[in-house]
Amino acid sequence: MKRLVVVGGGFGGLTVCRALRGTPIDVTLVDRVNHHLFQPLLYQVAMAGLSPAEIAYPIRSAFRDDPRVRVLLGEVVAIDRDLRTVRLLDGETLGYDWLVVAVGAQNDWFGKESTWGARSLGLKSIDDAVEIRRRVLLAFEAAEREADSASRDRLLTFVVIGGGPTGVEVAGALAELARTVLARDFRVIRPESARVVLVERGTRLLPGGFDPRSAESAQRQLAELGVEVRLGAEVRDLDDSGVALADGRVECATVLWTAGVRARALTARLGGVTDRAGRVEVAQDCSLPGHPEVFVIGDAARFAPEGSAQALPGIAPVAIQQGRFVAEAIRRDLRAQPRGRFSYRDKGIMATIGRSRAVAEAGRLRFGGLLAWVAWLVIHLWYLIGFRNRFVVLFSWFWNYVAYRRGARLITGERAWERLADYGVGEEPRLPPPEDTQPGSRQ
Amino acid sequence: MKRLVVVGGGFGGLTVCRALRGTPIDVTLVDRVNHHLFQPLLYQVAMAGLSPAEIAYPIRSAFRDDPRVRVLLGEVVAIDRDLRTVRLLDGETLGYDWLVVAVGAQNDWFGKESTWGARSLGLKSIDDAVEIRRRVLLAFEAAEREADSASRDRLLTFVVIGGGPTGVEVAGALAELARTVLARDFRVIRPESARVVLVERGTRLLPGGFDPRSAESAQRQLAELGVEVRLGAEVRDLDDSGVALADGRVECATVLWTAGVRARALTARLGGVTDRAGRVEVAQDCSLPGHPEVFVIGDAARFAPEGSAQALPGIAPVAIQQGRFVAEAIRRDLRAQPRGRFSYRDKGIMATIGRSRAVAEAGRLRFGGLLAWVAWLVIHLWYLIGFRNRFVVLFSWFWNYVAYRRGARLITGERAWERLADYGVGEEPRLPPPEDTQPGSRQ
Repeated sequence: MKRLVVVGGGFGGLTVCRALRGTPIDVTLVDRVNHHLFQPLLYQVAMAGLSPAEIAYPIRSAFRDDPRVRVLLGEVVAIDRDLRTVRLLDGETLGYDWLVVAVGAQNDWFGKESTWGARSLGLKSIDDAVEIRRRVLLAFEAAEREADSASRDRLLTFVVIGGGPTGVEVAGALAELARTVLARDFRVIRPESARVVLVERGTRLLPGGFDPRSAESAQRQLAELGVEVRLGAEVRDLDDSGVALADGRVECATVLWTAGVRARALTARLGGVTDRAGRVEVAQDCSLPGHPEVFVIGDAARFAPEGSAQALPGIAPVAIQQGRFVAEAIRRDLRAQPRGRFSYRDKGIMATIGRSRAVAEAGRLRFGGLLAWVAWLVIHLWYLIGFRNRFVVLFSWFWNYVAYRRGARLITGERAWERLADYGVGEEPRLPPPEDTQPGSRQ
Repeated sequence: MKRLVVVGGGFGGLTVCRALRGTPIDVTLVDRVNHHLFQPLLYQVAMAGLSPAEIAYPIRSAFRDDPRVRVLLGEVVAIDRDLRTVRLLDGETLGYDWLVVAVGAQNDWFGKESTWGARSLGLKSIDDAVEIRRRVLLAFEAAEREADSASRDRLLTFVVIGGGPTGVEVAGALAELARTVLARDFRVIRPESARVVLVERGTRLLPGGFDPRSAESAQRQLAELGVEVRLGAEVRDLDDSGVALADGRVECATVLWTAGVRARALTARLGGVTDRAGRVEVAQDCSLPGHPEVFVIGDAARFAPEGSAQALPGIAPVAIQQGRFVAEAIRRDLRAQPRGRFSYRDKGIMATIGRSRAVAEAGRLRFGGLLAWVAWLVIHLWYLIGFRNRFVVLFSWFWNYVAYRRGARLITGERAWERLADYGVGEEPRLPPPEDTQPGSRQ
């Protein structure tokens, strides 16, 4: 039986495997994590609105009724296009007749990973989101303990770098977290006085894809939530105490980075042509030029529709539609029929801004405010995998909506309380930690 | 205004603060984590049945409408009984008129923390539970990748040490996870063939508190789920490949430790008399002898009712009732009335064994099987803080019950796939990790 290897269990990879159901092919799906992640809602986990398990789903479970699909937890380190094999980090080698590379994108600090990357928090994985949640909540806790008012202001200042959809969503949700959810929980600080600064290098929000009027609408809606939007603001440096912008400094303890993504490193090993963002240029049938048996889809690929210089954006609908196309192409290969060309059906784009605010565009239609938010809600719920998640997410949202609460406000991770020192709270401890504290002990 | 400092936001500490609502006292509640944890359901998080946020609740939120209560995230490192102050790790000092020490218990490996403690997993915190979940799910993933059958058997063997309620609950839930939830998700291994071994040094399960007939019932119900119960089995050693028992070795990759707890280290700094388990001996009004202004309650205290040599067990109802008593004692102090003595009203004990199995005792009544399980469900839901959690937990349970699924099966933590190497999967990688992998990048 012919063998298909799919690398990546995101929207693209998962769709390929699902759409091939019933086709007589051995399918192996390899991912570095055991769960499919509903990325569009990841910012909700970072902002304590949802729990990780509400937007993630075990990849294995998606194929429990499809015995032809084998799911492997592993990391692909090498691809041999001549031998048609992929090798995993642990040495296992998988042969293929078709290969689909759907590895997605990762945070990118444009060569400043070791400095800016260490001082700001990206948002691409569950772990990223949980770390942001921890850092944001700890900043409020540290501020509550801080006697010095300048230090307190610094702790209560949050800078979001990047005015794309993720930056807009994060900034809106963060402002709302401070102004409504946390507002009554503290005694010393007033969380609603927290400053949220959204920094965008360009002259408008939501560059690339959205209409300028949507950008203006988003900016207005963010301003209503108290977000400071700074356009045309170039980041000169990130240091330990804040962000240096071309037009001045912002002292802050927490910097979120949504300004750059690039395709995952594996794309560089395919031997094809990659663009500045590491994306592999693909042919009109989504295959690697010269290697019709290798497909690259989703955020890892640069697909420019014929006659267009503009590549398709890195969003879930593109990955899903490409996944369906590739599954069909493989079925046609089996029947020795021509594959045809992938064409993207643009069903619209949207970004949400806190609860009950959003911008959305579909064809010539543009929405803003509550109507756009409801559309966003329905569409996102529809695509969430699994009834349970759909239900729990709906309930979480509804509950947060009516009660202004957030249920997932956990600061986890070992010895969270010790992290307060990272925020400069209080003096140095005058005593060493208790000697009789036992290793492995946590509260 | 008089000042009360409460150390610990578990059942005892939280109850004291809540029961003092409306009393003119300044209350400061200090905890090392930001959430109250519903400990009795912690094993459900470890076994991927519930998400952390479903059994934990931000302590601040519990007091959002009670401005006299100040909640601090911090670690108490010293208590000065003469000056009546507690000092936090970061140097802050809090004065008190009353002090309630409700710091709870931690895992105890009886002096073998650095060896046994490093090779087995305790279950006292959210972080512990998430780590167990990760390790258990990774063991199945590693087994799916393992070619050698002896190694595979070792990966699919789980030893639970300690036959108390937690050990019984964990072993039952683990057997059920393997036999129902994971059963159809793998292609190479048969998860239902996983071996769960429950090791108890004594001659019966559920020692201390439960009737021998309940112990027999629990053992029978565990056997129905396929758990191997080994009684009278003393642990000689834990090493990297398994557990050495007095009557033979068990090769296994995962060891869960529920055999010992002791009061948290802070109790040793109170200057009172402590027992072998680190618990502080308290007077009949729950105060430290000689220091009526210092109370110790819950798992941190050893309270023996007058005329009894037997101390009350370390369970939530004891902590809650002591918390209510201490709040009343403080109110009486304010009115210069005598405090009286604490007396425990035993409302029963229960332990659950997978879905639809349990044992319960209340007075002379004993239940087993489904009836006990339903009682357990209702009582635990009733005590869960917050409507949202109650609802979500009920729904999670119901959904798991009808669909045999578990929604929280996430393997999180950085680079989970690399952990497979810890399980000896595959060869050593022949290539270094990709050079172009960027720091901070995760899928």
